[in-house]
Amino acid sequence: MTAHILTIGDEILIGQIIDSNSAWMAEQLNLQGIRVTKIISISDTAEAIIKALDASFAETDLILITGGLGPTKDDITKKTLAQYYGTGMSFHEPSFERLSGMFARWGRATTAAHREQCFMPDNAVILTNKTGTAPGMWFDNEGKIAVSMPGVPYEMKYLMEHEVLPLIAKTFPGKPITHRTILTIGEGESRIAHRIQDIEEGLPEHIKLAYLPNLGQVRLRLSATGDNLAVLKEELEAQVALIRGQIPEFVFGYEKDTIENVVGQLLLKNRKSIATAESCTGGLVAHRITSIPGSSAYFEGSVVAYSYALKEKLLNVSPEILSTYGAVSEETVRAMLKGLLEKLGTDIGIAISGIAGPGGGTPEKPVGTIWIAVGNKNKTDTLKLQLGKSRSNNIKYTATKAMDMVRRFLLENV
Amino acid sequence: MTAHILTIGDEILIGQIIDSNSAWMAEQLNLQGIRVTKIISISDTAEAIIKALDASFAETDLILITGGLGPTKDDITKKTLAQYYGTGMSFHEPSFERLSGMFARWGRATTAAHREQCFMPDNAVILTNKTGTAPGMWFDNEGKIAVSMPGVPYEMKYLMEHEVLPLIAKTFPGKPITHRTILTIGEGESRIAHRIQDIEEGLPEHIKLAYLPNLGQVRLRLSATGDNLAVLKEELEAQVALIRGQIPEFVFGYEKDTIENVVGQLLLKNRKSIATAESCTGGLVAHRITSIPGSSAYFEGSVVAYSYALKEKLLNVSPEILSTYGAVSEETVRAMLKGLLEKLGTDIGIAISGIAGPGGGTPEKPVGTIWIAVGNKNKTDTLKLQLGKSRSNNIKYTATKAMDMVRRFLLENV
Repeated sequence: MTAHILTIGDEILIGQIIDSNSAWMAEQLNLQGIRVTKIISISDTAEAIIKALDASFAETDLILITGGLGPTKDDITKKTLAQYYGTGMSFHEPSFERLSGMFARWGRATTAAHREQCFMPDNAVILTNKTGTAPGMWFDNEGKIAVSMPGVPYEMKYLMEHEVLPLIAKTFPGKPITHRTILTIGEGESRIAHRIQDIEEGLPEHIKLAYLPNLGQVRLRLSATGDNLAVLKEELEAQVALIRGQIPEFVFGYEKDTIENVVGQLLLKNRKSIATAESCTGGLVAHRITSIPGSSAYFEGSVVAYSYALKEKLLNVSPEILSTYGAVSEETVRAMLKGLLEKLGTDIGIAISGIAGPGGGTPEKPVGTIWIAVGNKNKTDTLKLQLGKSRSNNIKYTATKAMDMVRRFLLENV
Repeated sequence: MTAHILTIGDEILIGQIIDSNSAWMAEQLNLQGIRVTKIISISDTAEAIIKALDASFAETDLILITGGLGPTKDDITKKTLAQYYGTGMSFHEPSFERLSGMFARWGRATTAAHREQCFMPDNAVILTNKTGTAPGMWFDNEGKIAVSMPGVPYEMKYLMEHEVLPLIAKTFPGKPITHRTILTIGEGESRIAHRIQDIEEGLPEHIKLAYLPNLGQVRLRLSATGDNLAVLKEELEAQVALIRGQIPEFVFGYEKDTIENVVGQLLLKNRKSIATAESCTGGLVAHRITSIPGSSAYFEGSVVAYSYALKEKLLNVSPEILSTYGAVSEETVRAMLKGLLEKLGTDIGIAISGIAGPGGGTPEKPVGTIWIAVGNKNKTDTLKLQLGKSRSNNIKYTATKAMDMVRRFLLENV
């Protein structure tokens, strides 16, 4: 089973926005066993839309369309689809009731334009959009399916999850497919592949393994197809256990976990508080920790000390350590951590100092030299990184690495 | 003049990566007066590539292709293009010399696979890629142009800027086109449009204005086409001056400026130092400031104080203020700012406290209530924001707003 994704709108064609919708939709379809063979972005003209529909239906039975449903675009997608199918448009009372109710709650009245938005092609199954004003539409023309959704990402995602994907599963009941994703951190793709080579080579034909790497993290996605979903799930669980057994130190979570989330859960579970003392990461670690809702339960605060003076004043780092070893040294991050724990009184701390670049390097300490310390008042782990020349990548990679050090520290010492 | 963009590779079709290349390429082509009418992503099979080339050449004379040139993909794009044009492949000595030199500098020897990578279709003009191993290729078949580039974003960008865009300008010498971008912050798209309505309506036919909004910022891009580039540039300058004159308080820069950069330049110019005291933004403002290379010249440090206790301890906020007005109040951000300036000794400070959500709201102070204070020891500006329910958007928008308050403070008071 294949599908095409068609995005309608000039915003993508002039480079104003990046088409992130299609990647998300493609991933969801893949997870349901549907292979996307083409993604097409076209202009919002009737001619372009009709030509694209004809071309795609010559190659596939399923087209997912986003965009062109907003009021500023004159609803060109909806009208064009009605024209394409040679059908009339009728007023859709339930859509208008929902819209009126929504506006009433906001204390606003509906206008003629809103009534206009509720005229829908007669052959469309209307898909309720609880996140916006434009409903989705499902067209079934003798087994050739076109689905039209708004291009606003959260509206499209709502419709996909609640309406479109279930309808697709019902309409194209292929073999069951199921997935498990193992999240790893701290080792590269090729080294992980080497470590689990035997397991990968021993995978049965109906189980596939994909490596999805991203700046210090690698997701391992197992997909199984077969006849019996319960059996497939059991098989995948067994493979997950095998892989985890082979690389236990790198696995930090599953499915939609994030390192920030996992560390947050560990801190909550162990009732430990945390703080950060940051130099070259400039507050990014604190920002990552506090991006998690509810992080105030374990995050106390952070000191970003860029200058020598502030490292001394805010973190009690002695001038002797700074002058003897320099700001980028194991001794300094240890002293920063000690000062942080004393000053902020948390159970765990993170201290980071380094040269993010592009300037500031020396032959002895080139750009990308970064020290991290993670610990409590009894024990400290330190790590020296030797990264590249990109300031932005150095900062991001270091923040990720520091979060992983906290994870390991909590698992080993708490 | 139109073009199609064709991306080759399963990574996009399975949703593993988002196609950010195409948006960048489309923007560059648009800036050169070439309208992208279709962006297509296809699988890396010869059949799919050949069908896509035929379909696109039926609609346009220019196809930009990315992807399928890496060694892991068996160079399917290159072979397929040779097949498409019915041409042989020959060893390209200059490419091999460059490759060997590159590897020699890394202290590594070339392999047979590298020699293989230097066989190029006989009808291709080879475009030197100084950023990677795969050269670009330019095919001209009686005025129908196909350009093949690697999919690695920085390699593609290098080739576009140094080889492809100049060649396109030479091959399709349309009317001169030139652009100016005005960067605004602090006002929405529709309000700005209203303020400059007269100017926009008075624009001559050959000058276009585009609004490019993004979370608190709106870029205004003016594009002019005509016969005389020097005249066009003068005309645009005059329009820029008119627009700036209408909305002077919102214009913070031009072209590729960022608010972080502009604030950094203002601080440098006025020899002022800065620090931040952050609660709900959790260090993001400090991270934004320090994302700029060389920011250590003006950024001293930051205190992220999530808890009452740390607001008292690190920023000298009195318990009375916190208990009387609450952590999210004008009084508290003023006290945080005062404490910050005392403790860190910088010229300027930013203090932020708010409820980022999704939890923590009250009827009196719902989620999205955020206070910002910006000032020096003599004068303080404060602002109350009432934002929405998205934690991530609230944090990002607040950080941007705070940077803009610093910009205005520096312009008005320093």
